[in-house]
Amino acid sequence: MDVKAAMAEAAEAVAETMDRLLALPDGPEARVVEAMRYSALGGGKRLRAFLVLQSAALFSVSRSCALRVAAAVEFLHAYSLIHDDLPAMDDSDLRRGRPSCHKAFDEATAVLAGDALLTYAFEVLAQEETHSDPRVRAELVLALARASGTQGMVGGQMLDLLAEDMDSIDASLITRLQRMKTAELLCFSCEAGAILGKAGKAARHALHSYGQEMGLAFQIADDLLDIEGDSSVTGKPTGLDDAAGKATLVAALGVENARAHALMLVDQSARHLDFFDDKAKLLKQVARFVVERQA
Amino acid sequence: MDVKAAMAEAAEAVAETMDRLLALPDGPEARVVEAMRYSALGGGKRLRAFLVLQSAALFSVSRSCALRVAAAVEFLHAYSLIHDDLPAMDDSDLRRGRPSCHKAFDEATAVLAGDALLTYAFEVLAQEETHSDPRVRAELVLALARASGTQGMVGGQMLDLLAEDMDSIDASLITRLQRMKTAELLCFSCEAGAILGKAGKAARHALHSYGQEMGLAFQIADDLLDIEGDSSVTGKPTGLDDAAGKATLVAALGVENARAHALMLVDQSARHLDFFDDKAKLLKQVARFVVERQA
Repeated sequence: MDVKAAMAEAAEAVAETMDRLLALPDGPEARVVEAMRYSALGGGKRLRAFLVLQSAALFSVSRSCALRVAAAVEFLHAYSLIHDDLPAMDDSDLRRGRPSCHKAFDEATAVLAGDALLTYAFEVLAQEETHSDPRVRAELVLALARASGTQGMVGGQMLDLLAEDMDSIDASLITRLQRMKTAELLCFSCEAGAILGKAGKAARHALHSYGQEMGLAFQIADDLLDIEGDSSVTGKPTGLDDAAGKATLVAALGVENARAHALMLVDQSARHLDFFDDKAKLLKQVARFVVERQA
Repeated sequence: MDVKAAMAEAAEAVAETMDRLLALPDGPEARVVEAMRYSALGGGKRLRAFLVLQSAALFSVSRSCALRVAAAVEFLHAYSLIHDDLPAMDDSDLRRGRPSCHKAFDEATAVLAGDALLTYAFEVLAQEETHSDPRVRAELVLALARASGTQGMVGGQMLDLLAEDMDSIDASLITRLQRMKTAELLCFSCEAGAILGKAGKAARHALHSYGQEMGLAFQIADDLLDIEGDSSVTGKPTGLDDAAGKATLVAALGVENARAHALMLVDQSARHLDFFDDKAKLLKQVARFVVERQA
C-alpha cells in the first residue's frame, strides 16, 4: 500500500472513531458539541492520527486502542486550530476552505468548543477502553500535556505572537518556536505507539527524534506552500504569513535554503527509523510525503 | 480549629504548592506563565482546595499528595475564570478587585494562559508525585475531565450564555445549569480525597452527594451576595447578574425562597457526611460557611 492510500484509510478510520466519541447530548448545551464536531470532523490530512496508528503498529498494539489515542490527538489538534483562529490570536475567518469555528458559530462558543476538545482529549486517554494498564493511560496523559503546555504548543503560540513585534528573529529562535508549536505534538503522536506498546527507551527515543525532525520539515513545507502553493489546492490564500510578518524559516533562510534544509531533515528523521528495519517503511515514506505534498 | 482559620491555613499551603509548581521558564514565552501566575496566585477563598484537603484527611492521605490535587483543582478553577471573563464571554474587566487577565495582559495571552492552566491541571494529576498508584492518577484525570467538560463546567457555561437569550427559564433548568457550571467541580474536589484514599463506593458516593448539594447552596449564596452584598467586602460591583439578565435561582424563586432553599440544601448536604461521624466536622461547617459568608 502506498503512503497516500494508507493515510486516506487511516483518516477515514479515525474520523469514524471521533464521530462515535463525540455524540450529541440532550439539552441546549449540545450547541458546544455541535461546534466541536464542526471543527474536529471537518476534514484534514489526519497526519497526527496516521503517526499514532503507524507507530502503534510497530509494537502490535490493538487497533481499537490506537484509534482512541489517534482520536485524542486529533481532538487536541482541533482545539489548537479553533483557538489560534480567534480574532485575538491569528484572526482567521477561514479554515480548510470553510468558515472558522467562531465564524460558523460565535466567539464564545468557539472558546468553549476549544476548551472542551482539549479537556476531552485527556478524558479519552484516561478511559479504561484506551488501555487496560492504568500506567499506560497516566503516561499518555502526561506526555500529551507536556506536548501541549507552556513548553509545547501553548508556549510556541505565545512565542509566535510575540515574534510579530520583534525587530529581528534569528533562525535558532524560529526553530525553537516551531519545535514547540508544531513538532512536539507530532513527537507525541510518534511516541504514543511506543507508550501503548510499553516499548523500551531506545525505541521511544528513536520515534521521538524522528517526530522532531519530521515535524520541523513539515513546518518548513507548510511555510513554502504558503508562499508558492496553489490556493485552489491548499484551500487558503497564499502569502498570508508574509503579510502578517510571521517568523518562518523560509523568511529567515530564503526559499532555496529552507527547501534544502527541509530535505536534509527528512533524511535525518528517516535514519532514526533504521532501528525498526523494514517495519517502519510507511513512516519513512510519510516524512518524504510531508515535504512533497501540494496541500 | 474553627472553619475560617482552617480555610486560611489551607489557602496558604495550596498557594505555596501552586507557586512552586508554576516556575517561570527561560525565554520570551515566560509571558504566558506570568499570566498564569497572575490569575492563579491572585488570591481567592481556595474553597475547592480546602475541600480536597478535608476529604483527603478523612482517608489519611499524605498531605503532599492532597496538596498537589488541591493545586490542580485551583489551576482548573483559575482557567475557567480567565476564559469566563473574556470579552466574548462575560466581558468582565475586574476579578477579585484587580484587572482581569485579559486586561492585565492582553486577550491572546489570556486565552493561552487559560489553555495552559487547564492543560497543567491534568499534567499535575498524571505526575508520579501525585500518587504512587497509576490507577489513582488515571482516575483523578478522568473525574476532573468529566467535571470540566461538556457535561460539566463547559456545558454549564454554554447553557449560561444561551440562557441570556431565552424568554423564560425555569428553576429546574437553572438548577441543572448551576450543577454543571459550579457544583460538578466542587463534587470533584470532595470526591478527590476518596479517590486518593482508594475509598469504597459508599464513601465516594456520600462525598459526591455532599458536594452537589453544598455546591448548589454555594451558588445561591453567590447570587444573593450579588444582589445584597457589600461591594467593599465582595470586591465586585453588585447587581451585575440582574443587569445581564443572568439565570439565577434568586431571580426565579425570589430572595426569601432562594435563601430558604440554600439553607435546606446545607442541612441536606451535611446529612450525607453522617457516614463519617465526627471526622467530617469541618466539612459540615464549611457547608454552613458558604451560605453565611459575606464575600
